[in-house]
Amino acid sequence: MTTDEVRLARAYLSRVAEPPAAALAALVAEVGPVRAARMVRAGEVPSAVDSQTSARRAVDRAEQDLATMAALGGRLVVPEDDDWPRWPLNALAVAAANGLRCGLEPLALWVRGGHSLAALTERAVAVVGSRAASGYGQHVAGEFGFGLAEAGVTVVSGAAYGIDGAAHRGAITAGGLTIAVLACGVDVAYPAGHRALLDRIARQGLVVSEYPPAHTPARHRFLTRNRLIAALAEGTVVVEAGQRSGAKNTAASTVALGRVLMAVPGPITSVSSSGCHELLRWGNALPVTSVPEIIESTGRLGVDLVETTRNTDTGPPQGDAMRVFEALGLSSGHSPESISVESGVELPRVRALLPQLELAGLATRVESGWKRSQEMSWRGDT
Amino acid sequence: MTTDEVRLARAYLSRVAEPPAAALAALVAEVGPVRAARMVRAGEVPSAVDSQTSARRAVDRAEQDLATMAALGGRLVVPEDDDWPRWPLNALAVAAANGLRCGLEPLALWVRGGHSLAALTERAVAVVGSRAASGYGQHVAGEFGFGLAEAGVTVVSGAAYGIDGAAHRGAITAGGLTIAVLACGVDVAYPAGHRALLDRIARQGLVVSEYPPAHTPARHRFLTRNRLIAALAEGTVVVEAGQRSGAKNTAASTVALGRVLMAVPGPITSVSSSGCHELLRWGNALPVTSVPEIIESTGRLGVDLVETTRNTDTGPPQGDAMRVFEALGLSSGHSPESISVESGVELPRVRALLPQLELAGLATRVESGWKRSQEMSWRGDT
Repeated sequence: MTTDEVRLARAYLSRVAEPPAAALAALVAEVGPVRAARMVRAGEVPSAVDSQTSARRAVDRAEQDLATMAALGGRLVVPEDDDWPRWPLNALAVAAANGLRCGLEPLALWVRGGHSLAALTERAVAVVGSRAASGYGQHVAGEFGFGLAEAGVTVVSGAAYGIDGAAHRGAITAGGLTIAVLACGVDVAYPAGHRALLDRIARQGLVVSEYPPAHTPARHRFLTRNRLIAALAEGTVVVEAGQRSGAKNTAASTVALGRVLMAVPGPITSVSSSGCHELLRWGNALPVTSVPEIIESTGRLGVDLVETTRNTDTGPPQGDAMRVFEALGLSSGHSPESISVESGVELPRVRALLPQLELAGLATRVESGWKRSQEMSWRGDT
Repeated sequence: MTTDEVRLARAYLSRVAEPPAAALAALVAEVGPVRAARMVRAGEVPSAVDSQTSARRAVDRAEQDLATMAALGGRLVVPEDDDWPRWPLNALAVAAANGLRCGLEPLALWVRGGHSLAALTERAVAVVGSRAASGYGQHVAGEFGFGLAEAGVTVVSGAAYGIDGAAHRGAITAGGLTIAVLACGVDVAYPAGHRALLDRIARQGLVVSEYPPAHTPARHRFLTRNRLIAALAEGTVVVEAGQRSGAKNTAASTVALGRVLMAVPGPITSVSSSGCHELLRWGNALPVTSVPEIIESTGRLGVDLVETTRNTDTGPPQGDAMRVFEALGLSSGHSPESISVESGVELPRVRALLPQLELAGLATRVESGWKRSQEMSWRGDT
């Protein structure tokens, strides 16, 4: 059980600095949330933390924010909770350790809706794309949202007009689960035209944000939010993206976090698909044309691997997974790029398999990349 | 100058066996066309050749066929001619040496039109696809045909309804060059509705076939013909292909011959694009969405490499080419697959670069794959 003190501290901290606040996060990691909150309030913090918190440190609405959320049927989920999506967000911590700015874990997550956040993100795929979507793109997003939800996969998106909205609606139509990650408070209806949709998502899934109640959206907050979409899902499908679409930012975060990036082909005569085709042409994304292909790409292999190697210990991973495993460093870590070169397995596939091997206890992520786990053992290799 | 005797012999041989006739081709390679024709006529041939030629050996219409072609403004191009597309067709010989059935060189090519076949295939790209094309597919094929022709690239296709016809028409509209490779005699209008188009292609390019005049098309002849389309072009673009499209056979030949295979993305809701998406998903084809991308994919790098290494000897190949070169075997040949693994360069790109390195005198194709050329030499490596 998380104490009220911890939750109040994190509620305060989530409002005091603009995410992602690296220095504050480091302080919280070092001294814990309660002491960090006390230090920030008193202004007795290192200068890097001070510059992130001084403007708002006098604003303490923690109790009020928690009350607002409770009235809305919501809550604040903190890392100390069982409901914290530990495994999905771990990718952020690893990325941060590798110096990636997109890698900062949120200090807490404001959540509207009754479902368990940890349970909903156990098997989740993000479906994202342009606000200025074509009829084709909206149709595909709706179909994918429906099909994924029907297959028991939670559909994660950003609740924007266009592709995002169509994906959420598809999941809702299927009677499935969906998560909207916002760049504003979860009590703010943004976009305004999606007020009813957001209410519906809160009933049939979760509306999630690292921003406290009443926070309004801003351009940089969408970019910060996008890393959460990428992290909370096993893979991200870009349905449509023009040359300047925010979905390209989510795509970049997906790759940086080691998640599977997928893109939907479309007519080459449509500018709405040009960003997807660029991702495909440069080999950053796998093409997907159906829900089964998405599920195949994000893979249940990890789960199967766990069963094979942990429970029955009957054999090594098969096919690509075996090749990737064999290309792992024995003592030092190798980058996904060099593992791809070594194994001959395509980079997006390598990126998909590594976390699965990790889940299976076969691979370990270290600062320099990926290496074989010490505890790994199966017949024929020990 | 090729003697009339050689041309008459090959004209006879082109009618006496159904291509691809491996045993007959081997006999011609061994004893030359004139003696081979004499032996076939007399029935004094090894049994493998006999079974390929006995049914038609009494049919000698060589003079008549050549006269028919001359009346049509056509001719028979034979390997002894300067006009023989030696370099493009060399890929067939290499594939044959590797035991690939699609690799047999034609004994001769019947050609309708005044252009030089060798000149027209110096820079050529095949644009192929389904007969049952969508409006989208036909639009794209027309645009690509137009753009490639305008850029000075010969558009190679099969004169079928749908994608093929649109590609030829695009090239003609641009006032550029185009080659139709038929699965029947070049004097046969097939499909009948393309009679006027074929006449136009003969004036503005070439109609080519390995079948003698009056030969009618047959299913197996389309498959045999497809290898010539793949061989005569530096790369093949599949614009649209359904699950059972003949274009998938041309795609397979393209890969087998070491040419660049490209596929055009389309709406995932269109069955006409499903074959293209399959080629993309399995990594067999590069996605292309514009003429500049096609030109970039088929690459002028070979030409530049020739200049760099042959004329000025100033340095090694750059980037991917360098990585592929370094992954070549020193004494024994390596497969493109293992070179891809070794170099970390994607397989379709490896396949595109190997012939260019060969052209530059840096790589040699041997039975077991590719190795470094003996004569290769540049500063820093010798």
